[in-house]
Amino acid sequence: MQLVTIDDIRSAAHRIRPRVVRTPLVPATWGDDNRPLWIKPENLQAVGAFKVRGAFSALTALTGPVEDVVAYSSGNHAQAVAYAAATFGMRAHIVMPEETPEVKVAATRTHGARVVLCGAGQREMVAAEVVAETGGVMIPPFDHPQVIAGQGTIGLEIAEDLPEVRTVLIPVSGGGLASGVGVAIRALCPQAAVYGVEPELAADTAESLRTGRRADWPVAQRNRTIADGLRSQPSELTFTHLQRVLDGVLTVTEDEIRSAVREFALRGHLVSEPSGAVALAAYRQGGTPPGPTAVILSGGNIEPRLLTEILAGRAV
Amino acid sequence: MQLVTIDDIRSAAHRIRPRVVRTPLVPATWGDDNRPLWIKPENLQAVGAFKVRGAFSALTALTGPVEDVVAYSSGNHAQAVAYAAATFGMRAHIVMPEETPEVKVAATRTHGARVVLCGAGQREMVAAEVVAETGGVMIPPFDHPQVIAGQGTIGLEIAEDLPEVRTVLIPVSGGGLASGVGVAIRALCPQAAVYGVEPELAADTAESLRTGRRADWPVAQRNRTIADGLRSQPSELTFTHLQRVLDGVLTVTEDEIRSAVREFALRGHLVSEPSGAVALAAYRQGGTPPGPTAVILSGGNIEPRLLTEILAGRAV
Repeated sequence: MQLVTIDDIRSAAHRIRPRVVRTPLVPATWGDDNRPLWIKPENLQAVGAFKVRGAFSALTALTGPVEDVVAYSSGNHAQAVAYAAATFGMRAHIVMPEETPEVKVAATRTHGARVVLCGAGQREMVAAEVVAETGGVMIPPFDHPQVIAGQGTIGLEIAEDLPEVRTVLIPVSGGGLASGVGVAIRALCPQAAVYGVEPELAADTAESLRTGRRADWPVAQRNRTIADGLRSQPSELTFTHLQRVLDGVLTVTEDEIRSAVREFALRGHLVSEPSGAVALAAYRQGGTPPGPTAVILSGGNIEPRLLTEILAGRAV
Repeated sequence: MQLVTIDDIRSAAHRIRPRVVRTPLVPATWGDDNRPLWIKPENLQAVGAFKVRGAFSALTALTGPVEDVVAYSSGNHAQAVAYAAATFGMRAHIVMPEETPEVKVAATRTHGARVVLCGAGQREMVAAEVVAETGGVMIPPFDHPQVIAGQGTIGLEIAEDLPEVRTVLIPVSGGGLASGVGVAIRALCPQAAVYGVEPELAADTAESLRTGRRADWPVAQRNRTIADGLRSQPSELTFTHLQRVLDGVLTVTEDEIRSAVREFALRGHLVSEPSGAVALAAYRQGGTPPGPTAVILSGGNIEPRLLTEILAGRAV
């Protein structure tokens, strides 16, 4: 199996530069004294999440004329592919489960995509049918070297802005983000510890890294977490990367996730979705090494009602 | 009267570069088609507001050894001076009215400043006493060329990132921000229209520019707006700049301000204080010229209860 390299990430960075926001690494004055805190605010990307990096990386790596792209996702990847495809005048076909909230379906259509609704558990099969029907190219959410390389550009930017970084904390779901960022940090900041972060309620990767083989948690179990973007599991490709580049996976509770969403909003002035706040939640547990610490705020697409409820909750 | 020049702003930019966040100009996919929207998120600065730029500009322009600095402010300028002074190991003495919310007093003390409370309307007199007592240097919130030059670095960055900008919308209170940004945009993007934005309830500068002389609105009248950072009035120095660099001042209602706070949070994933959202509110009125439009989100320090209330309100 060929792993993504720092050169792949550099090449992706070059290709996507005109298309994505070069987010700053923002120093937070409200971190711990011995672990200065820096935030990578990927909620400022066009669709409110880092996923545009992988989508543009994959689309700009296509060779030959491509008119149709296909993706299956109920989350930020759907909007990212729809948005990136529209940029290049390609048609996007996005397969989403019927139970996807109407607001996400509408957001995907906003970018001009065709949405194909399907029954629960039918996504991959229906997506394959759409590929067969349209001759389109499938852009998977994480199981793809160019998608991993695109997400890895975040690590490249962290290394540029904070070469002395000591700890990097990254949300883990399918593992594309953590794989790419991990490769970049390992290559450029060998002194840094790199941790994935998962909800306790969807901690399949923490278990997998401990045992050395991919655990399979029932989807109903993973779906318990409020962090709806962190319910996927790594593929063989991303898991192999994670084994190579992560120092471990930290897990956080639902209450810790809510507190982190609140802290991002009130102290960082940044709106995070629950999935986007797990790295800060892990930082707040206090167990990571001393020294400069970068947390990735991976996305900001939170339901208004949930954000309101969290803000109205207990104090930070 | 000597006005601030683009060279003053360039010099300030050079001095403050290591101390402030180089904020990105973030493209918003949710703007109008004929007026592409860009956001300058100054809520990402260390104290949650652009004020650190002016504070660092003023402190780095001091000549000779200075151990004490003095400021009067109940708002973001207080924290900015406290923060900047602490960076250089200077003592900061901040004069605040007794009715200042405890949270803001505490935030200022967090940065190591000494807070001197005073009666309403006594701020300038007490600050002068503190200067006499400590031999400190006064750093005013806007009536100071180096403060204006520091705020102007935002305009420099907008011109770097979006040289083709057609409209720039800037919150106006004491006018330091609008003066500095206006000078930079006039010099570097002569094609751009530059508008100040005020709450209708504190629209002294709109009136002043119309009549050509500084209007004086009673403080009780200005205090009616929810935008607590926009209740000051320009000085002779800033008013002269504004006459020279602004195409006009737009005014927004309290409801429009609330809607803009909500839109920044839910679509931009950025937390804004009411004062920070007036430029977006003016954009949403729809009357500004077609073409690329930059709005300055000047600060994010909003009371949690108010943010919650606004989010729970009507839809964007």
